[in-house]
Amino acid sequence: MHISEIDTPALLVDLDIMERNLCRVAAYAREHGLRLRPHTKTHKSIRLARRQLELGAAGLTVAKVAEAEVMLGAEPADLLVAYPILGPAKLRRLMEVARRTRVTVSLDSAVAARQLSGAARKAGVEVGVLAEVDIGLGRVGETPGPLFVALARAILALPNLSLEGITFYPGHVKSWDDAGREAFAQATGLLRSILADFRSAGIGVRIVSGGSTPALFHSHEMEGLTEIRPGTYIFNDVNTVASGACEWEDCAATVLATVVSTARPGQAIVDGGSKTFSSDRLVNPAEATFGRVVEAPGARFHKMNEEHGFLDIAHAERAFALGDRVRIVPNHVCTAVNLHERVYGVRGENVEEVWPVDARGKLT
Amino acid sequence: MHISEIDTPALLVDLDIMERNLCRVAAYAREHGLRLRPHTKTHKSIRLARRQLELGAAGLTVAKVAEAEVMLGAEPADLLVAYPILGPAKLRRLMEVARRTRVTVSLDSAVAARQLSGAARKAGVEVGVLAEVDIGLGRVGETPGPLFVALARAILALPNLSLEGITFYPGHVKSWDDAGREAFAQATGLLRSILADFRSAGIGVRIVSGGSTPALFHSHEMEGLTEIRPGTYIFNDVNTVASGACEWEDCAATVLATVVSTARPGQAIVDGGSKTFSSDRLVNPAEATFGRVVEAPGARFHKMNEEHGFLDIAHAERAFALGDRVRIVPNHVCTAVNLHERVYGVRGENVEEVWPVDARGKLT
Repeated sequence: MHISEIDTPALLVDLDIMERNLCRVAAYAREHGLRLRPHTKTHKSIRLARRQLELGAAGLTVAKVAEAEVMLGAEPADLLVAYPILGPAKLRRLMEVARRTRVTVSLDSAVAARQLSGAARKAGVEVGVLAEVDIGLGRVGETPGPLFVALARAILALPNLSLEGITFYPGHVKSWDDAGREAFAQATGLLRSILADFRSAGIGVRIVSGGSTPALFHSHEMEGLTEIRPGTYIFNDVNTVASGACEWEDCAATVLATVVSTARPGQAIVDGGSKTFSSDRLVNPAEATFGRVVEAPGARFHKMNEEHGFLDIAHAERAFALGDRVRIVPNHVCTAVNLHERVYGVRGENVEEVWPVDARGKLT
Repeated sequence: MHISEIDTPALLVDLDIMERNLCRVAAYAREHGLRLRPHTKTHKSIRLARRQLELGAAGLTVAKVAEAEVMLGAEPADLLVAYPILGPAKLRRLMEVARRTRVTVSLDSAVAARQLSGAARKAGVEVGVLAEVDIGLGRVGETPGPLFVALARAILALPNLSLEGITFYPGHVKSWDDAGREAFAQATGLLRSILADFRSAGIGVRIVSGGSTPALFHSHEMEGLTEIRPGTYIFNDVNTVASGACEWEDCAATVLATVVSTARPGQAIVDGGSKTFSSDRLVNPAEATFGRVVEAPGARFHKMNEEHGFLDIAHAERAFALGDRVRIVPNHVCTAVNLHERVYGVRGENVEEVWPVDARGKLT
């Protein structure tokens, strides 16, 4: 199938770029002795998860039990549910997953730990736990210090749980610039003191799981870190480029869109909007745009409705005629992929594979 | 099934509120002699489209051919594809739809009209056309005046097309306040002159299709308008309330979410973010929030990641404990519904129906 036969809007992935991205991070992790547990939330595809495992990933990461259920299809030796799981319905389903592979859960409360322990005991399984600490993002995670040590002790005291270590997400390191490096250095210092607390308390820490996309290739500089869970690196997006973690030629995923209206001078409307790209803004909003037009980066994608993308073409490098097709790199590829039923894997002008977004909309 | 048995996050629809919303607009349209062609992009459900037809809708509106294919399931006598359709793949599929029911397409270019005419001739069907004019939004639509009359003439000259009238979307009327009323008055004046142009040119206009949610119940004040295509009214959302077109008690759709972390004082994290609500901001951003917590409107939903909603609970009307469930009205219900596989129809505390979001992710 030729690329011109794909109906738009459609999500394309350049297979060569994707493979290069996968290999680069696999090699980086290997070189620095970091365990790689890729987050599958970005691609939500069993097929791509299998490829990550083939390339040396020690396991997979998911955000939801429903994603874990889907990712069993990739037959991982290990599944990390990087999300606090609460309530009987989810725990029952999680235990079904735990019967089929090794499951680890990250959590930040004794309440979640007790619920998990109760469910694991009832199911007759052992579940791994990573105690989650807030290293500066201010989202989930216990406060470093005595509260965090107490959480670890609470986990250790509970049956059918195995405390494997600690986890955190330094999502506040938004870019590898001065501010980002400063936040990274602070997080590194905080981690050092957290690990010292655990040593003093005599609590073993086998896994220290962290890392974030903007600082991905600096993960080895965070002393004590043993594991990374990158997601976006498989495709990359405008945010990844803006953060300094990759270049435009490393962006594997684009939305193929068609110009459907040029009625207004200086403007082209394409057939994708917030239901195709998601309405995620840029993390570092120098400009409020929604994607980068590959063929004409000067065309400013400045506004969207559900099914309409507005390109200001006043400073575009080319003309836009009705029916023209363009490729647009989304701001945030994780939310964009989740809007698509399938992905077209292309090599040059050929569509070589089409795969489903298996875990699309798996919210619970 | 009791509401407490639903796993979260989940999209709930209060069936009584929905039915009241449906009846209110059906009665309004009837009272003012306006043809009602509801836009199904909001609910994307065959079942709900059927209910709209039962309540007197003359047909259904969709944005995409793929939505039209799905909505054939509701057996509408008439389907309006309110989107310019270009390219052989889409036109071939659209003609399959046109073999099964009456299809009308809105378009703003002679190029699109010629392509549509060619496809219709080849398929041996007649397709209705609404010539689209830009009445102030600046999205799609030909410029009012000679260019628009020329577009209508081009359509009239083409075989297998039947020019049924004109269409526009005054999406720039964002609220029923002074600015909105002013924009509405200008649009009304513009419509008057457009209709005069057509009369002078001897071009018949049977349908004048317009309207937008903020001015929904003022549609009859727009002289010449014969048809409305509301979508959001079935559920409503924070934007609809903010625009003045409904009250909080008219919001039928809420996201049921669970508090999963309270580790940070003054904050509660719920298990839904941009993959559950969409990251759509408010149309009129007095505040940058992502939804209204029904149980505690003072809890400020000020930030989200993919699977995390951040509630600032410093001024909340109640405490938030781990495992607590809250209902949150989304900013924009159309993009939120599109993220869910199914909808739970509730009456009080009982789940009475569960329906699929049939046209979810139907992008082409």
